[in-house]
Amino acid sequence: MGSFDKKNSFYPHSSYPHSLMGILAPQTGTAFILKQDETLKIVDIEGGQVCDLFCFSAIDPGEWLSSGRSIDYNDTISLSTGHLLYSNRSSPMLEIVSDTCGKHDFLLPPCSLEMFRKVSGSTHYHPSCHENLVQHFREFGPDGDRIGTTFNVFMNVSVASEGRIRILPPISKAGDHITFKAQMDLIMGLTACAHEETNKGRCKSIGYEILDPI
Amino acid sequence: MGSFDKKNSFYPHSSYPHSLMGILAPQTGTAFILKQDETLKIVDIEGGQVCDLFCFSAIDPGEWLSSGRSIDYNDTISLSTGHLLYSNRSSPMLEIVSDTCGKHDFLLPPCSLEMFRKVSGSTHYHPSCHENLVQHFREFGPDGDRIGTTFNVFMNVSVASEGRIRILPPISKAGDHITFKAQMDLIMGLTACAHEETNKGRCKSIGYEILDPI
Repeated sequence: MGSFDKKNSFYPHSSYPHSLMGILAPQTGTAFILKQDETLKIVDIEGGQVCDLFCFSAIDPGEWLSSGRSIDYNDTISLSTGHLLYSNRSSPMLEIVSDTCGKHDFLLPPCSLEMFRKVSGSTHYHPSCHENLVQHFREFGPDGDRIGTTFNVFMNVSVASEGRIRILPPISKAGDHITFKAQMDLIMGLTACAHEETNKGRCKSIGYEILDPI
Repeated sequence: MGSFDKKNSFYPHSSYPHSLMGILAPQTGTAFILKQDETLKIVDIEGGQVCDLFCFSAIDPGEWLSSGRSIDYNDTISLSTGHLLYSNRSSPMLEIVSDTCGKHDFLLPPCSLEMFRKVSGSTHYHPSCHENLVQHFREFGPDGDRIGTTFNVFMNVSVASEGRIRILPPISKAGDHITFKAQMDLIMGLTACAHEETNKGRCKSIGYEILDPI
C-alpha cells in the first residue's frame, strides 16, 4: 500500500514500532485496510485543516458509513470521544476513542468537482475529496456513487436555530488529533480536504497513523 | 402499479382527471415511477404523521437522493418551498414547489428493525419504513443498502446549539401538504412512518397524489 511510503512518514518509524504512519499531501487522499481493533489516528499537522473520512466493510462493501444512522443512534450531530459511527446496516464501524479538538462535521458530503462548479460557476478543473476517494477506493472495489456523507474530521459547520448552515474555519490547532478504533475490518478512505475556503484559505497536509491492537 | 389501486383512493378519481391518488395505510409504503415534470403531492390526512421519501434515478439507479448534497447546496437543513433536493451526483432530483407545513427532516434515516431493537432492547418484530422501502423498491431493482437518509416529510427534529437532536411531535395539521416537482425520471418510494413515538403515539395514514405536468 503506497499510502504508507516511508518517505512520507512524519515521525521516525523507530519511535513507533507498532505503527504505520503517513502524510497526505495537500488535496490528496488514500485508502487502506483497517482491521478490526486497530486504531487510526488522524493528526492536523499545521492546524486548520479538514480530513474527510469514509469507509466500507472489507467483508462486504455493500455496508458503508452512514451519517444518518450515526446521528440517530447517538442523538447528536456533534460526535466526539465515546461515540460510535454506524453503517447503513446499523452495525458499529468505528469508535471515537480520543479527540483533542471536539469539532467535526457529519452533515456534508466530500467536496466534488460538481460542487466547485456550482460554487464558482467555472468549468475549470479543481481537485476534490470526492475524486480522491473515488480514485483510492477503486482499487478495493467500491464505486464512487456509494461514497455518501463523509465524517469530516476538524470541519467546523454551524447550524443556526432556523436550520441555516455555515462553514466556519476549523478550530483545530497544530497537533490536534482524533483516534478511531475499528469495530470491523474496514476499507478506509481519507483525504486532506481540497477546498481552500474550508481550510482557512490554504489546503494543507494531514497526518495519519495506524496503531496495532493493544 | 398496485400502489394506485382505485379502492385505496381517498378522493373520487373523476374529480381529478389528471391525477392518480392513493392512501398509504398506517405503517406501509409504496414505490412508483414519477416522471420528469410530474408533481407529487403528499398529504397529512389526520395531522401529526410523518412520510419518509427516498428516490433513485429511473435511468440509472446508481444515482440516488443525497441529504448531504441537498444540505450543502441549499445551505440549510430546513428544506421547504423553492429548495431543490439533489442526488449523490449533484443533479437536481426534486423541487419543493409548495409546502403548507414547513417542518421536515433530512438528517435521519428511515426507522428500521435494527433501530427498534436498539431503542427497545427487544428482539420482537416491528414494521419499519426501511423494510417497507426495501420491499417496494425491490421490484424496480435497487437493493436496500442504497437507501440512505430519507427526506422525512412532516418529521420534526430539533437541533440544539451543542448538536443534540430531539425528535418532537410533528407540527403538521390535518390537510397539510407538500408538493415536489420531479427534475428527472424517478423511482419514488414513500412510507407512512411506522414509528409510534415519531407520530404522536399512533401511526396513521398518508395521502399522495401524482399530478401531470401542467
